[in-house]
Amino acid sequence: MSKLRIGLGVDFHQLVEGREFWLGGILVPHHKGALGHSDADVLLHAICDAMLGAANLGDIGVHFPDTDNAYKDIDSKILLSQCAQLIGEKGYQVVNIDSTLCLQEPKIKPYVPQMQQVIAERLRISTEDISIKATTTERMGFVGREEGIMAYASVLLEKA
Amino acid sequence: MSKLRIGLGVDFHQLVEGREFWLGGILVPHHKGALGHSDADVLLHAICDAMLGAANLGDIGVHFPDTDNAYKDIDSKILLSQCAQLIGEKGYQVVNIDSTLCLQEPKIKPYVPQMQQVIAERLRISTEDISIKATTTERMGFVGREEGIMAYASVLLEKA
Amino acid sequence: MSKLRIGLGVDFHQLVEGREFWLGGILVPHHKGALGHSDADVLLHAICDAMLGAANLGDIGVHFPDTDNAYKDIDSKILLSQCAQLIGEKGYQVVNIDSTLCLQEPKIKPYVPQMQQVIAERLRISTEDISIKATTTERMGFVGREEGIMAYASVLLEKA
Repeated sequence: MSKLRIGLGVDFHQLVEGREFWLGGILVPHHKGALGHSDADVLLHAICDAMLGAANLGDIGVHFPDTDNAYKDIDSKILLSQCAQLIGEKGYQVVNIDSTLCLQEPKIKPYVPQMQQVIAERLRISTEDISIKATTTERMGFVGREEGIMAYASVLLEKA
Repeated sequence: MSKLRIGLGVDFHQLVEGREFWLGGILVPHHKGALGHSDADVLLHAICDAMLGAANLGDIGVHFPDTDNAYKDIDSKILLSQCAQLIGEKGYQVVNIDSTLCLQEPKIKPYVPQMQQVIAERLRISTEDISIKATTTERMGFVGREEGIMAYASVLLEKA
Repeated sequence: MSKLRIGLGVDFHQLVEGREFWLGGILVPHHKGALGHSDADVLLHAICDAMLGAANLGDIGVHFPDTDNAYKDIDSKILLSQCAQLIGEKGYQVVNIDSTLCLQEPKIKPYVPQMQQVIAERLRISTEDISIKATTTERMGFVGREEGIMAYASVLLEKA
């Protein structure tokens, strides 16, 4: 049987005025930011969930409940590191990650290389194995109205 | 060429008063249930579609049309068993499944182990190879307004 | 380390009167068509993005910006061919693609075999390795109101 495992993570956050906009582990200049118990980094959360799912370790809500004060305003890079440790303890390593941010604004292309670097460091893999794409929803739905953002992450893990 | 095949299933159902809420093959206590021609089990439908897609066998609507009285109110576990047989006849077995339920309420975490067991039995695989995650949409969109639910399932198949 | 790479593409387009409805590389008879800078083929765009993502080559907006007149009203099959060449140059070939169209109307099942053939020709793979599924969103959201369509594509690549 194959040593590979597939995972898919999906995450959603509201966008509101007066919050910092953390995305892919970095601070993105924008007049709105994502609302959440942690720093609300929708991309890192989708990646965490994809990794946990592929390793059948539950989900981000199981490991880092939003009712736990320990995770209030926490830097999601810390959660990402913890997910890397959790899958490592189960014998898995990341083959590659492909992710998509759905947001109307701003353009995130200029920030992608820095996001890739931050994520690669936390997962101890190459930036070559972390893809970050972006799309608008063509002004439709809550993403199109800039009320919120969503992210998808697909991940392939391999048992060492 | 690789013996692996990837599949992705997505499904949607309205939530209404006065329907039983079947999810992951079990009855979840809730004041609403999913509307559909069958028992409207959004998680099992997404998994069926991911399996059929990975094996290039069409989709759930092709095999079990909602215009066919044979599938009226049918237990989706029967459809899951039939999908397992269909991919088996084509020489495929499931490596792993990772799924995500998007719903505002109720919390499904307490039901996950039972769902995993039901699905594992139907697919004749280990519960270790079936991941079920859940997220809200942070009160946004039709899922956030509790008008509906959606589910994603990614699956990895291997040719025997 | 595995020679396989996973990718996931997601795309959205508005549906409007007075546009041709290009989907999966073919013209689908319908009273509405998808709005976009190119021919707005949501299925081909999702597949392109999944291929680019799996090979970590950025996204469709990076390669074919909608601010570039060269891509005005362009046939997305040309973009698909270019993506095939881009991943080929990096040493990858497609193992399989599984896609899902989310649209309320029309039924696309009759068009699937032709779409598979068009895509197979452009990617120089077998129709057996291209799955196209479809679902409604049960009349919910912008897809359910027929204001727009969306598509998901998951792809597995292998390094030659």
